Amino acid sequence: MSTNPILAPHRSIRLFRADPLPEGTIQRLVAEAQRAPTDATGQMYSFVRVLDRARRRRIAELSGDQQHVLDAAEFLVTCADVHRLVRVLELHGRVPGEYPATGLHFAVIDATLATQRLIDAAEAIGLGTVCIGGILNGVEELIELLALPRGVLPLFGLCLGWPGEAPVARPRVALTSVLHADTYHELTPAAAAADVTAMAPITRSSNWPAVLGRYFAAGGTMEEREPALRRALERQGFAWSRE
Amino acid sequence: MSTNPILAPHRSIRLFRADPLPEGTIQRLVAEAQRAPTDATGQMYSFVRVLDRARRRRIAELSGDQQHVLDAAEFLVTCADVHRLVRVLELHGRVPGEYPATGLHFAVIDATLATQRLIDAAEAIGLGTVCIGGILNGVEELIELLALPRGVLPLFGLCLGWPGEAPVARPRVALTSVLHADTYHELTPAAAAADVTAMAPITRSSNWPAVLGRYFAAGGTMEEREPALRRALERQGFAWSRE
Repeated sequence: MSTNPILAPHRSIRLFRADPLPEGTIQRLVAEAQRAPTDATGQMYSFVRVLDRARRRRIAELSGDQQHVLDAAEFLVTCADVHRLVRVLELHGRVPGEYPATGLHFAVIDATLATQRLIDAAEAIGLGTVCIGGILNGVEELIELLALPRGVLPLFGLCLGWPGEAPVARPRVALTSVLHADTYHELTPAAAAADVTAMAPITRSSNWPAVLGRYFAAGGTMEEREPALRRALERQGFAWSRE
Repeated sequence: MSTNPILAPHRSIRLFRADPLPEGTIQRLVAEAQRAPTDATGQMYSFVRVLDRARRRRIAELSGDQQHVLDAAEFLVTCADVHRLVRVLELHGRVPGEYPATGLHFAVIDATLATQRLIDAAEAIGLGTVCIGGILNGVEELIELLALPRGVLPLFGLCLGWPGEAPVARPRVALTSVLHADTYHELTPAAAAADVTAMAPITRSSNWPAVLGRYFAAGGTMEEREPALRRALERQGFAWSRE
């Protein structure tokens, strides 16, 4: 078996040329996205294409002043969406169920499968992309800005455009760290040390645990995002009461 | 701009030839998966490759007696995983934060991005795939069976193998139903009717609302799955108390 790469090598692109995409490109890519697998025929996602400059600028600010959100030829917000299928049910006289956790589970999966297929298609035709998790920093205002109804949750942004840079591929942990046989195997201290060494080039400090810590340790970005995300989940119909 | 398809056309394959995959195929595909975008350098996913026949048989049963789970050359369970990075933090003397909602959000996205890239790579080399959302039916037993620690949640299964059938591509709703410009547009009754017509071939009855209803209406599959998923989220550290 060949060990050659199969798909175009992914590197996040954060510097874009100003050129627009050819007419119809977004439609062609969304059509590719729609071919992704979907649970229960539900197609539980929506893409909001942000064309308006003022709206785009505000999203760039909310995401932590990410200039590429403004500069990319195209910017999409990927949303989990159980609203649209509820509408189809209601128009056909059926009473929708109540399943905030399960709806969120399958809608986030559906939306993300579709978006990765869109990314793979975009990269196959030479476009550059970067996912913007930072939209979560302003999730409540974003819901207002995009007029998202109950049942729809913004997940992440996606910049698309012609690459204006050619960055090297960023490192990853060992394959053996993410692939388990039959049961989950705990990461050994030796394997963790190897991953930390492999990941060092991801940051100028060569200190991956420090990068991880800024996001995932106590007081980090993930904790900062938690209250607003919980409020957004509640507001959009994806929260439930613990017993 | 061409409107030709870019990637291999996806059709879920549920009938597989018995031939195994060439040595190293799974590793090659997981390496492709690892190139997918990841939030905050976290790589918040794990794949559990189910090799043991008895374990595979039990998962096929739990998923609603899906024979292809047993017959496919390979079967992976995609898991959201914030456990592994917490372990790296702890081994480096850092205190992990508390962010059940945000951790779930980004881990489900990371895991699903990686899996769709794996699917696109698999299909590019001629393999067939099908995602198994039905593993959710037995999510609590599955957590035991795969020995998943707190911080790890099974999301869906993935069968991989040489296709033993060549089904036609299944229908999708209109592109205009999933693509919005600047703000979310409500599905009009006319657009819903067009989608229902377009989706009719997805089922022998030609009645897409009936299929949707079996899953998403009151008393449907999604509601049935809800209590066990909530318990699993709680147990694995992804639940929080509403205010």
